Amino acid sequence: MKVIADVCVIPIGIGVSVSKEISVCERIFSEAGLKTRLHAYGTNLEGEWDAVFDAIKRCHETLHEMGVPRISTSLRFGTRVDREQTMEDKVRSVEEKLGAAISR
Amino acid sequence: MKVIADVCVIPIGIGVSVSKEISVCERIFSEAGLKTRLHAYGTNLEGEWDAVFDAIKRCHETLHEMGVPRISTSLRFGTRVDREQTMEDKVRSVEEKLGAAISR
Amino acid sequence: MKVIADVCVIPIGIGVSVSKEISVCERIFSEAGLKTRLHAYGTNLEGEWDAVFDAIKRCHETLHEMGVPRISTSLRFGTRVDREQTMEDKVRSVEEKLGAAISR
Amino acid sequence: MKVIADVCVIPIGIGVSVSKEISVCERIFSEAGLKTRLHAYGTNLEGEWDAVFDAIKRCHETLHEMGVPRISTSLRFGTRVDREQTMEDKVRSVEEKLGAAISR
Repeated sequence: MKVIADVCVIPIGIGVSVSKEISVCERIFSEAGLKTRLHAYGTNLEGEWDAVFDAIKRCHETLHEMGVPRISTSLRFGTRVDREQTMEDKVRSVEEKLGAAISR
Repeated sequence: MKVIADVCVIPIGIGVSVSKEISVCERIFSEAGLKTRLHAYGTNLEGEWDAVFDAIKRCHETLHEMGVPRISTSLRFGTRVDREQTMEDKVRSVEEKLGAAISR
Repeated sequence: MKVIADVCVIPIGIGVSVSKEISVCERIFSEAGLKTRLHAYGTNLEGEWDAVFDAIKRCHETLHEMGVPRISTSLRFGTRVDREQTMEDKVRSVEEKLGAAISR
Repeated sequence: MKVIADVCVIPIGIGVSVSKEISVCERIFSEAGLKTRLHAYGTNLEGEWDAVFDAIKRCHETLHEMGVPRISTSLRFGTRVDREQTMEDKVRSVEEKLGAAISR
Protein backbone atom coordinates (compact mmCIF):
# COMPACT_ATOMS: atom_id res chain seq x y z
CA MET A 1 0.00 0.00 0.00
CA LYS A 2 1.49 3.31 -1.10
CA VAL A 3 1.08 6.38 1.06
CA ILE A 4 1.52 10.11 0.54
CA ALA A 5 2.19 11.82 3.85
CA ASP A 6 3.03 15.19 5.29
CA VAL A 7 4.99 15.24 8.53
CA CYS A 8 5.82 18.05 10.93
CA VAL A 9 8.12 17.06 13.80
CA ILE A 10 8.27 19.36 16.84
CA PRO A 11 11.11 18.72 19.29
CA ILE A 12 10.13 20.01 22.75
CA GLY A 13 12.44 21.03 25.56
CA ILE A 14 15.47 22.12 23.50
CA GLY A 15 14.68 25.80 23.03
CA VAL A 16 13.11 27.77 20.19
CA SER A 17 15.43 26.68 17.38
CA VAL A 18 14.65 23.25 15.99
CA SER A 19 16.02 23.38 12.43
CA LYS A 20 19.02 21.17 13.22
CA GLU A 21 16.70 18.40 14.45
CA ILE A 22 14.43 18.84 11.43
CA SER A 23 17.44 18.48 9.12
CA VAL A 24 18.34 15.19 10.84
CA CYS A 25 14.85 13.89 10.04
CA GLU A 26 15.16 15.09 6.45
CA ARG A 27 18.32 13.06 6.04
CA ILE A 28 16.63 9.98 7.52
CA PHE A 29 13.72 10.36 5.10
CA SER A 30 16.05 10.69 2.10
CA GLU A 31 18.28 7.82 3.14
CA ALA A 32 15.16 5.65 3.49
CA GLY A 33 14.63 6.08 -0.24
CA LEU A 34 11.43 8.07 0.19
CA LYS A 35 10.46 10.81 -2.19
CA THR A 36 10.58 13.96 -0.03
CA ARG A 37 9.81 17.63 -0.44
CA LEU A 38 10.49 20.10 2.33
CA HIS A 39 8.11 23.04 2.75
CA ALA A 40 7.67 25.79 5.34
CA TYR A 41 5.57 23.73 7.77
CA GLY A 42 6.62 20.13 7.24
CA THR A 43 7.77 17.67 4.62
CA ASN A 44 5.87 15.72 1.98
CA LEU A 45 6.78 12.04 1.88
CA GLU A 46 5.88 9.37 -0.66
CA GLY A 47 6.61 5.67 -0.50
CA GLU A 48 5.40 2.27 0.60
CA TRP A 49 3.53 2.35 3.93
CA ASP A 50 6.18 0.46 5.94
CA ALA A 51 9.07 2.48 4.51
CA VAL A 52 7.35 5.76 5.38
CA PHE A 53 6.42 4.78 8.93
CA ASP A 54 9.75 3.06 9.64
CA ALA A 55 11.53 6.27 8.67
CA ILE A 56 9.31 8.35 10.92
CA LYS A 57 10.01 5.95 13.81
CA ARG A 58 13.75 6.20 13.15
CA CYS A 59 13.40 9.98 13.22
CA HIS A 60 11.85 9.90 16.72
CA GLU A 61 14.44 7.37 17.95
CA THR A 62 17.36 9.36 16.56
CA LEU A 63 16.23 12.69 18.02
CA HIS A 64 15.77 11.10 21.45
CA GLU A 65 19.29 9.58 21.17
CA MET A 66 20.55 13.10 20.36
CA GLY A 67 19.08 14.28 23.67
CA VAL A 68 15.65 15.62 22.69
CA PRO A 69 13.48 14.75 25.72
CA ARG A 70 10.06 15.09 24.08
CA ILE A 71 8.70 15.13 20.54
CA SER A 72 5.23 15.95 19.25
CA THR A 73 4.62 15.17 15.59
CA SER A 74 1.69 16.09 13.41
CA LEU A 75 1.10 13.90 10.40
CA ARG A 76 -1.38 13.77 7.54
CA PHE A 77 -1.37 10.75 5.30
CA GLY A 78 -3.52 9.40 2.54
CA THR A 79 -4.04 6.12 0.76
CA ARG A 80 -6.27 5.40 -2.20
CA VAL A 81 -7.17 2.29 -4.14
CA ASP A 82 -9.19 3.82 -6.96
CA ARG A 83 -6.07 4.90 -8.86
CA GLU A 84 -2.35 5.58 -8.59
CA GLN A 85 -1.38 9.12 -7.68
CA THR A 86 1.99 10.74 -6.96
CA MET A 87 2.86 13.89 -5.03
CA GLU A 88 3.41 15.64 -8.39
CA ASP A 89 0.02 14.44 -9.67
CA LYS A 90 -1.71 16.01 -6.67
CA VAL A 91 -0.07 19.41 -7.16
CA ARG A 92 -0.55 19.33 -10.95
CA SER A 93 -4.22 18.47 -10.58
CA VAL A 94 -4.87 21.62 -8.53
CA GLU A 95 -2.64 23.80 -10.72
CA GLU A 96 -4.49 22.71 -13.87
CA LYS A 97 -7.79 23.81 -12.34
CA LEU A 98 -6.20 27.11 -11.30
CA GLY A 99 -4.83 27.62 -14.80
CA ALA A 100 -8.17 26.81 -16.41
CA ALA A 101 -9.91 29.32 -14.17
CA ILE A 102 -7.35 32.04 -14.91
CA SER A 103 -7.44 31.57 -18.68
CA ARG A 104 -11.23 31.66 -18.88
CA MET B 1 9.12 3.20 22.70
CA LYS B 2 5.68 4.11 24.00
CA VAL B 3 3.54 6.57 22.07
CA ILE B 4 0.43 8.59 22.85
CA ALA B 5 -1.42 9.44 19.66
CA ASP B 6 -4.58 11.07 18.43
CA VAL B 7 -5.99 9.84 15.15
CA CYS B 8 -8.76 11.21 12.93
CA VAL B 9 -9.57 9.03 9.92
CA ILE B 10 -11.53 10.62 7.07
CA PRO B 11 -12.97 8.22 4.48
CA ILE B 12 -13.45 10.05 1.15
CA GLY B 13 -15.81 9.13 -1.65
CA ILE B 14 -18.52 7.38 0.38
CA GLY B 15 -20.81 10.32 1.14
CA VAL B 16 -21.19 12.58 4.18
CA SER B 17 -21.76 9.92 6.82
CA VAL B 18 -18.60 8.18 7.98
CA SER B 19 -19.46 6.97 11.49
CA LYS B 20 -19.75 3.32 10.43
CA GLU B 21 -16.19 3.40 9.08
CA ILE B 22 -14.94 5.20 12.21
CA SER B 23 -16.53 2.50 14.38
CA VAL B 24 -14.67 -0.17 12.38
CA CYS B 25 -11.40 1.59 13.20
CA GLU B 26 -12.40 1.85 16.88
CA ARG B 27 -12.86 -1.90 17.02
CA ILE B 28 -9.50 -2.48 15.38
CA PHE B 29 -7.81 -0.19 17.91
CA SER B 30 -9.47 -1.97 20.85
CA GLU B 31 -8.76 -5.45 19.52
CA ALA B 32 -5.11 -4.45 19.12
CA GLY B 33 -4.97 -4.04 22.89
CA LEU B 34 -4.42 -0.28 22.72
CA LYS B 35 -5.79 2.03 25.33
CA THR B 36 -8.35 4.13 23.40
CA ARG B 37 -10.63 7.06 24.11
CA LEU B 38 -13.05 8.33 21.50
CA HIS B 39 -13.77 12.06 21.36
CA ALA B 40 -15.66 14.35 19.01
CA TYR B 41 -12.81 14.81 16.50
CA GLY B 42 -10.74 11.66 16.73
CA THR B 43 -9.51 9.01 19.12
CA ASN B 44 -6.72 9.01 21.69
CA LEU B 45 -4.48 5.95 21.48
CA GLU B 46 -1.78 4.73 23.84
CA GLY B 47 0.56 1.79 23.39
CA GLU B 48 3.88 0.60 22.08
CA TRP B 49 4.92 2.32 18.83
CA ASP B 50 4.58 -0.77 16.60
CA ALA B 51 1.22 -1.77 18.09
CA VAL B 52 -0.20 1.72 17.51
CA PHE B 53 1.03 2.06 13.93
CA ASP B 54 0.16 -1.53 12.98
CA ALA B 55 -3.40 -0.90 14.12
CA ILE B 56 -3.63 2.31 12.11
CA LYS B 57 -2.36 0.44 9.04
CA ARG B 58 -4.94 -2.29 9.57
CA CYS B 59 -7.61 0.41 9.80
CA HIS B 60 -6.65 1.80 6.35
CA GLU B 61 -6.43 -1.71 4.85
CA THR B 62 -9.79 -2.76 6.29
CA LEU B 63 -11.65 0.34 5.13
CA HIS B 64 -10.25 -0.08 1.60
CA GLU B 65 -11.37 -3.74 1.64
CA MET B 66 -14.84 -2.51 2.66
CA GLY B 67 -14.90 -0.38 -0.48
CA VAL B 68 -13.67 3.02 0.71
CA PRO B 69 -11.71 4.33 -2.29
CA ARG B 70 -9.70 7.05 -0.54
CA ILE B 71 -8.72 7.85 3.06
CA SER B 72 -7.06 10.92 4.51
CA THR B 73 -5.94 10.61 8.11
CA SER B 74 -4.68 13.26 10.46
CA LEU B 75 -2.52 12.09 13.32
CA ARG B 76 -0.73 13.68 16.26
CA PHE B 77 1.66 11.55 18.26
CA GLY B 78 4.17 12.14 20.97
CA THR B 79 7.06 10.29 22.53
CA ARG B 80 9.15 11.31 25.53
CA VAL B 81 12.17 9.85 27.24
CA ASP B 82 12.40 12.17 30.24
CA ARG B 83 9.63 10.34 32.10
CA GLU B 84 6.68 7.95 31.76
CA GLN B 85 3.34 9.56 31.06
CA THR B 86 -0.10 8.09 30.36
CA MET B 87 -3.14 9.61 28.66
CA GLU B 88 -4.71 10.07 32.10
CA ASP B 89 -1.56 11.80 33.40
CA LYS B 90 -1.74 14.34 30.59
CA VAL B 91 -5.37 15.24 31.27
CA ARG B 92 -4.88 15.28 35.06
CA SER B 93 -1.86 17.55 34.75
CA VAL B 94 -3.91 20.22 32.96
CA GLU B 95 -6.93 19.77 35.22
CA GLU B 96 -4.80 20.26 38.34
CA LYS B 97 -3.55 23.58 37.00
CA LEU B 98 -7.13 24.57 36.17
CA GLY B 99 -8.29 23.59 39.65
CA ALA B 100 -5.45 25.48 41.32
CA ALA B 101 -6.32 28.60 39.36
CA ILE B 102 -10.01 28.35 40.19
CA SER B 103 -9.48 27.76 43.92
CA ARG B 104 -7.06 30.65 44.32
CA MET C 1 -21.58 29.13 10.63
CA LYS C 2 -21.07 26.68 13.47
CA VAL C 3 -17.79 24.82 13.79
CA ILE C 4 -16.60 21.80 15.73
CA ALA C 5 -12.85 21.95 16.25
CA ASP C 6 -10.04 20.14 17.96
CA VAL C 7 -7.05 22.20 19.02
CA CYS C 8 -3.62 21.18 20.29
CA VAL C 9 -1.40 24.10 21.33
CA ILE C 10 2.34 23.45 21.66
CA PRO C 11 4.37 26.16 23.42
CA ILE C 12 8.01 26.00 22.26
CA GLY C 13 11.06 27.26 24.10
CA ILE C 14 9.80 26.93 27.69
CA GLY C 15 10.97 23.40 28.50
CA VAL C 16 9.22 20.01 28.46
CA SER C 17 6.32 20.86 30.75
CA VAL C 18 3.53 22.76 29.07
CA SER C 19 0.44 21.91 31.14
CA LYS C 20 0.29 25.34 32.81
CA GLU C 21 0.09 27.01 29.40
CA ILE C 22 -2.51 24.52 28.21
CA SER C 23 -4.63 25.26 31.29
CA VAL C 24 -4.50 28.98 30.46
CA CYS C 25 -5.92 28.20 27.02
CA GLU C 26 -8.60 25.98 28.56
CA ARG C 27 -9.75 28.88 30.70
CA ILE C 28 -9.84 31.19 27.69
CA PHE C 29 -11.95 28.69 25.75
CA SER C 30 -14.41 28.30 28.65
CA GLU C 31 -14.66 32.02 29.31
CA ALA C 32 -15.41 32.55 25.62
CA GLY C 33 -18.59 30.53 26.14
CA LEU C 34 -17.45 27.68 23.93
CA LYS C 35 -18.41 24.12 24.62
CA THR C 36 -15.08 22.43 25.45
CA ARG C 37 -13.87 18.94 26.26
CA LEU C 38 -10.27 18.29 27.18
CA HIS C 39 -8.66 15.02 26.07
CA ALA C 40 -5.16 13.58 26.15
CA TYR C 41 -3.96 15.26 22.94
CA GLY C 42 -5.98 18.44 22.64
CA THR C 43 -9.37 19.96 23.30
CA ASN C 44 -12.68 19.68 21.45
CA LEU C 45 -14.35 23.05 20.87
CA GLU C 46 -17.83 23.84 19.62
CA GLY C 47 -19.29 27.24 18.83
CA GLU C 48 -19.85 29.88 16.21
CA TRP C 49 -16.90 30.27 13.83
CA ASP C 50 -15.83 33.73 15.03
CA ALA C 51 -16.13 32.82 18.72
CA VAL C 52 -13.96 29.73 18.22
CA PHE C 53 -11.25 31.48 16.23
CA ASP C 54 -11.23 34.61 18.40
CA ALA C 55 -10.63 32.41 21.44
CA ILE C 56 -7.77 30.60 19.72
CA LYS C 57 -6.21 33.96 18.80
CA ARG C 58 -6.55 35.15 22.40
CA CYS C 59 -4.85 31.96 23.51
CA HIS C 60 -1.79 32.67 21.30
CA GLU C 61 -1.70 36.33 22.37
CA THR C 62 -1.97 35.48 26.07
CA LEU C 63 0.76 32.82 26.00
CA HIS C 64 3.10 35.23 24.22
CA GLU C 65 2.34 37.90 26.84
CA MET C 66 3.19 35.30 29.51
CA GLY C 67 6.62 34.94 27.90
CA VAL C 68 6.21 31.96 25.55
CA PRO C 69 8.47 32.86 22.60
CA ARG C 70 7.05 30.46 20.02
CA ILE C 71 3.82 28.48 19.60
CA SER C 72 2.89 25.80 17.09
CA THR C 73 -0.75 24.78 17.07
CA SER C 74 -2.41 21.91 15.29
CA LEU C 75 -6.09 22.28 14.59
CA ARG C 76 -8.81 20.20 12.97
CA PHE C 77 -12.15 21.82 12.31
CA GLY C 78 -15.28 20.90 10.47
CA THR C 79 -18.35 22.66 9.16
CA ARG C 80 -21.41 21.13 7.55
CA VAL C 81 -24.55 22.52 5.98
CA ASP C 82 -26.48 19.31 5.41
CA ARG C 83 -27.60 19.10 9.04
CA GLU C 84 -26.92 20.29 12.58
CA GLN C 85 -24.49 18.18 14.59
CA THR C 86 -23.02 18.62 18.06
CA MET C 87 -19.89 17.16 19.63
CA GLU C 88 -22.09 14.71 21.52
CA ASP C 89 -23.89 13.69 18.31
CA LYS C 90 -20.57 12.82 16.70
CA VAL C 91 -19.46 10.59 19.56
CA ARG C 92 -22.91 8.98 19.96
CA SER C 93 -23.09 8.21 16.25
CA VAL C 94 -19.88 6.16 16.41
CA GLU C 95 -20.80 4.53 19.72
CA GLU C 96 -24.18 3.39 18.36
CA LYS C 97 -22.44 1.63 15.48
CA LEU C 98 -20.00 0.05 17.93
CA GLY C 99 -22.87 -1.10 20.16
CA ALA C 100 -24.81 -2.51 17.22
CA ALA C 101 -21.77 -4.49 16.11
CA ILE C 102 -21.16 -5.85 19.61
CA SER C 103 -24.78 -6.88 20.23
CA ARG C 104 -25.15 -8.67 16.90
CA MET D 1 0.53 39.19 14.96
CA LYS D 2 1.97 37.43 11.94
CA VAL D 3 1.24 33.75 11.37
CA ILE D 4 2.71 31.04 9.18
CA ALA D 5 0.16 28.31 8.56
CA ASP D 6 -0.33 25.14 6.61
CA VAL D 7 -3.88 24.27 5.61
CA CYS D 8 -5.36 21.10 4.16
CA VAL D 9 -9.05 21.36 3.26
CA ILE D 10 -10.99 18.10 2.75
CA PRO D 11 -14.42 18.43 1.12
CA ILE D 12 -16.62 15.47 2.14
CA GLY D 13 -19.61 14.11 0.31
CA ILE D 14 -18.67 15.12 -3.26
CA GLY D 15 -16.78 12.01 -4.35
CA VAL D 16 -13.08 11.16 -4.50
CA SER D 17 -11.90 14.09 -6.63
CA VAL D 18 -11.50 17.31 -4.73
CA SER D 19 -8.92 19.26 -6.73
CA LYS D 20 -11.48 21.72 -8.15
CA GLU D 21 -12.53 22.69 -4.61
CA ILE D 22 -8.90 22.98 -3.52
CA SER D 23 -8.19 25.29 -6.45
CA VAL D 24 -11.08 27.53 -5.37
CA CYS D 25 -9.45 27.86 -1.94
CA GLU D 26 -6.08 28.59 -3.55
CA ARG D 27 -7.62 31.49 -5.44
CA ILE D 28 -9.22 32.81 -2.28
CA PHE D 29 -5.88 32.67 -0.45
CA SER D 30 -4.09 34.51 -3.28
CA GLU D 31 -6.78 37.15 -3.67
CA ALA D 32 -6.57 37.78 0.09
CA GLY D 33 -3.00 38.96 -0.46
CA LEU D 34 -1.49 36.07 1.47
CA LYS D 35 1.82 34.57 0.55
CA THR D 36 0.93 31.00 -0.52
CA ARG D 37 2.77 27.91 -1.61
CA LEU D 38 0.90 24.80 -2.71
CA HIS D 39 2.40 21.40 -1.89
CA ALA D 40 1.23 17.80 -2.19
CA TYR D 41 -0.72 17.74 1.09
CA GLY D 42 -1.81 21.30 1.70
CA THR D 43 -0.81 24.91 1.26
CA ASN D 44 1.60 27.11 3.20
CA LEU D 45 0.14 30.51 4.07
CA GLU D 46 1.83 33.58 5.50
CA GLY D 47 0.21 36.83 6.59
CA GLU D 48 -1.36 38.76 9.41
CA TRP D 49 -3.49 36.58 11.72
CA ASP D 50 -6.85 38.09 10.73
CA ALA D 51 -6.09 38.00 7.00
CA VAL D 52 -5.12 34.31 7.19
CA PHE D 53 -8.14 33.22 9.22
CA ASP D 54 -10.60 35.39 7.28
CA ALA D 55 -9.43 33.74 4.07
CA ILE D 56 -9.84 30.27 5.55
CA LYS D 57 -13.37 31.17 6.67
CA ARG D 58 -14.18 32.46 3.18
CA CYS D 59 -12.89 29.19 1.78
CA HIS D 60 -15.33 27.15 3.92
CA GLU D 61 -18.21 29.53 3.11
CA THR D 62 -17.51 29.46 -0.62
CA LEU D 63 -17.25 25.67 -0.84
CA HIS D 64 -20.55 25.29 1.04
CA GLU D 65 -22.17 27.79 -1.36
CA MET D 66 -20.85 25.66 -4.24
CA GLY D 67 -22.73 22.70 -2.78
CA VAL D 68 -20.12 20.93 -0.63
CA PRO D 69 -22.17 19.56 2.30
CA ARG D 70 -19.32 18.93 4.74
CA ILE D 71 -15.72 20.07 5.11
CA SER D 72 -12.99 18.87 7.45
CA THR D 73 -9.85 20.99 7.53
CA SER D 74 -6.52 20.27 9.14
CA LEU D 75 -4.39 23.27 10.00
CA ARG D 76 -1.01 23.88 11.56
CA PHE D 77 -0.05 27.43 12.45
CA GLY D 78 2.73 29.09 14.31
CA THR D 79 3.42 32.46 15.85
CA ARG D 80 6.62 33.68 17.45
CA VAL D 81 7.63 36.86 19.21
CA ASP D 82 11.35 36.22 19.62
CA ARG D 83 12.12 37.20 16.03
CA GLU D 84 10.66 37.71 12.56
CA GLN D 85 10.62 34.66 10.33
CA THR D 86 9.22 34.07 6.85
CA MET D 87 8.24 30.85 5.09
CA GLU D 88 11.47 31.10 3.09
CA ASP D 89 13.51 31.58 6.27
CA LYS D 90 12.09 28.37 7.70
CA VAL D 91 12.98 26.30 4.63
CA ARG D 92 16.41 27.93 4.26
CA SER D 93 17.25 27.29 7.89
CA VAL D 94 16.75 23.54 7.48
CA GLU D 95 18.47 23.43 4.07
CA GLU D 96 21.55 25.17 5.47
CA LYS D 97 21.88 22.50 8.17
CA LEU D 98 21.41 19.79 5.52
CA GLY D 99 24.07 21.41 3.34
CA ALA D 100 26.49 21.73 6.24
CA ALA D 101 26.05 18.07 7.09
CA ILE D 102 26.59 16.97 3.49
CA SER D 103 29.71 19.08 2.96
CA ARG D 104 31.38 17.91 6.16
